[in-house]
Amino acid sequence: MLSASAESTGATTAMTDDALVGDAKVILPEGISARVRVPASSANLGPGFDCLGIALGIYDELIVETTSAGVEVEVSGEGTDDVPRDGSHLVARAIARGLAVAGVTAPGLKLRCVNAIPHSRGLGSSAAAAVSGLAAASGLLVEAGIRDAFDDAELVQLSSEFEGHPDNAAASVLGSAVVTWMESDGVGGVGATDAVRVRYLARRLAVHPDITATVFVPSTESSTSYTRGLLPDAVPRRDAVFNVSRAALAVVALTDDPAALCAATEDRLHQDYRAEAMPPTAELVAALRKRGHAATVSGAGPTVLVLGVGPVPAEDRDVAIGLGFVPSSVAIAGGVEVTHGRS
Amino acid sequence: MLSASAESTGATTAMTDDALVGDAKVILPEGISARVRVPASSANLGPGFDCLGIALGIYDELIVETTSAGVEVEVSGEGTDDVPRDGSHLVARAIARGLAVAGVTAPGLKLRCVNAIPHSRGLGSSAAAAVSGLAAASGLLVEAGIRDAFDDAELVQLSSEFEGHPDNAAASVLGSAVVTWMESDGVGGVGATDAVRVRYLARRLAVHPDITATVFVPSTESSTSYTRGLLPDAVPRRDAVFNVSRAALAVVALTDDPAALCAATEDRLHQDYRAEAMPPTAELVAALRKRGHAATVSGAGPTVLVLGVGPVPAEDRDVAIGLGFVPSSVAIAGGVEVTHGRS
Repeated sequence: MLSASAESTGATTAMTDDALVGDAKVILPEGISARVRVPASSANLGPGFDCLGIALGIYDELIVETTSAGVEVEVSGEGTDDVPRDGSHLVARAIARGLAVAGVTAPGLKLRCVNAIPHSRGLGSSAAAAVSGLAAASGLLVEAGIRDAFDDAELVQLSSEFEGHPDNAAASVLGSAVVTWMESDGVGGVGATDAVRVRYLARRLAVHPDITATVFVPSTESSTSYTRGLLPDAVPRRDAVFNVSRAALAVVALTDDPAALCAATEDRLHQDYRAEAMPPTAELVAALRKRGHAATVSGAGPTVLVLGVGPVPAEDRDVAIGLGFVPSSVAIAGGVEVTHGRS
Repeated sequence: MLSASAESTGATTAMTDDALVGDAKVILPEGISARVRVPASSANLGPGFDCLGIALGIYDELIVETTSAGVEVEVSGEGTDDVPRDGSHLVARAIARGLAVAGVTAPGLKLRCVNAIPHSRGLGSSAAAAVSGLAAASGLLVEAGIRDAFDDAELVQLSSEFEGHPDNAAASVLGSAVVTWMESDGVGGVGATDAVRVRYLARRLAVHPDITATVFVPSTESSTSYTRGLLPDAVPRRDAVFNVSRAALAVVALTDDPAALCAATEDRLHQDYRAEAMPPTAELVAALRKRGHAATVSGAGPTVLVLGVGPVPAEDRDVAIGLGFVPSSVAIAGGVEVTHGRS
């Protein structure tokens, strides 16, 4: 497990931030803290576009303390050079959102972020940041005696609303693999009107203990919003039916029948459309599948995920390395963990 | 369990049939018999178009004996007035197909069919007929010492090829609920060329013991080929994604979480498109869902299936009766059963 104090190398910047205060009448006391450990995630798993995800054992750590004023953000590891260091920092905004649920704000915040989840690689770093901030808010609220911790359903709802990728967010909240779906009313129709609040729901799957995960992370980044623009508004019905069968099979394969993982991770709804945006990723998925691996584009890419029942052999890893990817065996992770206390 | 001898009321017609002979060099001995009991099935279950099915405890029974010549078919129960009584009878053709797998033919056949599965109602009667014929062939081949029984995978393949609805056929073969999918090569792509033989595959789900099924059967019939023509070749991507999430959830709901059945049985890919062909069915599905039941169109309709965790209350059954449907609680069935012997 990473240690924030030992491995911190990032710069520290303190500044005031009115956004945290808002209209809340209750202000948290100074000197309370929460510590969060949140896993990375891989979404889609092939057929399960926007609805299947799996938590992976690459963790971001967050320690947050309430201070007298301002927002101070210390970042080490991934994103050190890129992320803002004030209240606009994604984790800080997620904390503020979580506190707002209870009508509460913080007088000031000090965040220490130790990030291991690569950014913009399709490993759910944004969703993990949202989950970590909301879980931290939950810890602060409990420590302050204001309310009980957010339960899993609340964390899934809040983080999905906040960040927009429920498949990643639910995996980071619940751990293991997840199925997510959306509802907007009692019988589950989605998006009848914009005025209806969308409910984000998720179920955790008991992943078969033999299943292993390997990620192949390239040095290049990818923009989810760009790659999403490559998807057509209409798709052939036969492709829709194809993915429906494979998504149902994916649940069977993940929980009960790892031998079906190759068939269960096939996709016709998104990967091919996005291939032009990341040719090496498409090439690696095709090469690994040809070699019998259940390879998929992780989220919107460019990382490639392989689910299997053992390590990927060296000769297949070498194919990936030759295409500019770094292979890592990763555990299938549990969900977010949060502790709280007083500093 | 139905008894063929006790309840038979159909007429008997004997005639020769060259189709049974074909090119096979091996001819079965006279006087061997097989007896088959095959369950009905409901396909789609809402989102799982062409890939989810469930076996229901309404059974067709078949007793077949090899005779010296000709094909004699005795039918009682459903279809008595409609089906042919010679080698063109669906069950007789399926038996011939099964025997042909072993390069075998029958000198003659006598079939007694006791049918409880309603025809052309979306309860998989054709798939059940195919499965029963193939299972009977298997029994005859074993009794004649020609080969081992077809295993489940062979029966799924042969019956799906023969009849064209793998979701129904696999449910009748395996029992319980099933996920089916198609592959045409080692990595699972479908239909690259017509020359490629499609492989039909299926996995049986362990249905949660609390789940109950109710069917609402109307007096009207429906043609699957007609209703299939109502489906568009292209669908909105958001609808495809919607069904993907619900089909994955359906596996979770069926095996582990019956409380999710309502959300898990929603569909946007086929039911609405076919509603015009059977207004009362669409009306009943909507009415039952509004009342909190996981109601779906059974296969291509017009029967309605409700999956739940207990009987459908009388006031909700009355709604169905008012629309011309007959409600029946049915068991979730086991797979096809076959015995064989000498007469």
